[in-house]
Amino acid sequence: MHLLGLDLGGTKLATAVFDTSGGILCSERQELSGRGGDKVGEMICRQIEEYLSNQEYSITAIGISVPGISNAHTKMVWAPNIPGWDAYPLYDQIRDVAGNIPFRIESDRSCYVLGEWWQGNARGCTDVIYLAVGTGIGAGIFCNGKVLSGAGGIAGAAGWMVLQPGYKKEYECCGCFERHASGRGMVKVAVELLSETNQKSQLKKEEGFSAKDIFEAAAHEDPVAMEVIKQSVRYWGMGIANLISLFNPQKIILGGGIFGPAIGLIPAIHDEAIQWAQPISMQQVLLEPSALGSAAGLYGAAYTALMLLDSHKSDSNV
Amino acid sequence: MHLLGLDLGGTKLATAVFDTSGGILCSERQELSGRGGDKVGEMICRQIEEYLSNQEYSITAIGISVPGISNAHTKMVWAPNIPGWDAYPLYDQIRDVAGNIPFRIESDRSCYVLGEWWQGNARGCTDVIYLAVGTGIGAGIFCNGKVLSGAGGIAGAAGWMVLQPGYKKEYECCGCFERHASGRGMVKVAVELLSETNQKSQLKKEEGFSAKDIFEAAAHEDPVAMEVIKQSVRYWGMGIANLISLFNPQKIILGGGIFGPAIGLIPAIHDEAIQWAQPISMQQVLLEPSALGSAAGLYGAAYTALMLLDSHKSDSNV
Repeated sequence: MHLLGLDLGGTKLATAVFDTSGGILCSERQELSGRGGDKVGEMICRQIEEYLSNQEYSITAIGISVPGISNAHTKMVWAPNIPGWDAYPLYDQIRDVAGNIPFRIESDRSCYVLGEWWQGNARGCTDVIYLAVGTGIGAGIFCNGKVLSGAGGIAGAAGWMVLQPGYKKEYECCGCFERHASGRGMVKVAVELLSETNQKSQLKKEEGFSAKDIFEAAAHEDPVAMEVIKQSVRYWGMGIANLISLFNPQKIILGGGIFGPAIGLIPAIHDEAIQWAQPISMQQVLLEPSALGSAAGLYGAAYTALMLLDSHKSDSNV
Repeated sequence: MHLLGLDLGGTKLATAVFDTSGGILCSERQELSGRGGDKVGEMICRQIEEYLSNQEYSITAIGISVPGISNAHTKMVWAPNIPGWDAYPLYDQIRDVAGNIPFRIESDRSCYVLGEWWQGNARGCTDVIYLAVGTGIGAGIFCNGKVLSGAGGIAGAAGWMVLQPGYKKEYECCGCFERHASGRGMVKVAVELLSETNQKSQLKKEEGFSAKDIFEAAAHEDPVAMEVIKQSVRYWGMGIANLISLFNPQKIILGGGIFGPAIGLIPAIHDEAIQWAQPISMQQVLLEPSALGSAAGLYGAAYTALMLLDSHKSDSNV
């Protein structure tokens, strides 16, 4: 009995076959190479067809992680980084190729926390949050022993948290926290600092750079890069403090592309958060890096598949 | 079959007998008159004994709302506004007088949202938050169809939300949001403004005043009072935006002593929140005043009692 997990990102499609204990039997990764719309839907369907017809595996359920929102009511997917996926009928397309194999489409942030809960650092937790800091910022929230979806399936939009008064136009597309402290936000902050400073920096705003470049420059004591990271630590600590005060979780797991290089900053983030958070909740929480790294979404996708089987058996679900 | 609900506040103990449809058969209110410690525990136990022995009622379950945290593991109550209730053994005391009648002690913020969910403006919601703005600020959070308690029973500490960078010593005892926009916080803001301004104001810092006085002064166009309220609206809007982005609720219900006089400000609060919150979640949420007002805790206490009966029958619980 095997599970098929697919993890769609803004630039890649990862696929893996799992056993029901979380072991990976095989995995592969395909680049989207700029594909959008139906081309991406076709990639997903082709992978599903291929693995279902592969005699080596006996796929009994399928889970798909998408970089956005899977609306349980409309059965449509909204994925802002896939061109043409404003309301994409992925559900109907997969139904046509999956036949009688049960499947579920889940948001990436929910998959991250479910993956960690199944096979990573959230095992055994009843209340745990996966804060994904990459290009954007989102939170997979697991509370009361279940994933929090909210009324419309878009709970966990942590990037939209207000962390300072004074609304700015630049928050319109992404929210305050994300504008200041996501990967994309860090680059914008660095560009602003470069415009304001006479300090020498290896970051050249004319040439374009990434958040990864900022961490590399900071490792060489580049003053602009170090200032960007200092500001980011402050926002990460404040945002995490809010999650701690509101949810009183056992753990907050830090993942996404930035954690990654920012893992070593967790003690500094903790020091910022402890100033702000409800003090008893702060004592009760652990800040930890993701155990599964970039595979968290794939594990979570496979776990949503496993839950379909369990719900077939016992009607329980996460 | 009747339910006994008790709602302990910082200054009063309210008691009511409910039928299982939410009808109130009788209610009474006693002032604490400065009592603390065991004297308050005795008041509660005496009320329970009295109603259990009253032949007019057939009390089958008891719910008690406390102004703080009821720790499910230690069975102790922490209530910062009741002197001597740092770790108060209310559970053991009630067990001695309740005999074989099931009872439950629940935090006031959980009771507020449960009360509204049973008999008020949250009826039918799966995801709803009661934001209580009174002397302090707290949130009763109902998500995934259950009250959110968190790992240690202290979820919903919304008063501790960070809404602006720059930690100040004055946040230490209560948190940033509460310092700026609770009833007690509004008074502090007013005192600060009075120290800084030459504008005439009917608020006299030497004489002491309450948040209620600030609303009354604002109704007479007192400039200092109007500025305090303007600032509070901004913080309420920002705090509510964060709840909307993180929880994607169907409703946020505004209650506590301040809502109350601030109910007419809900449209202005909405206008502030809409700038900040995740835009789709913002469209999906309604901001509404409490339907039950100061009785929300009492209704919620009775509902926790009702749930005990239901859990005896079906093992389900909220």
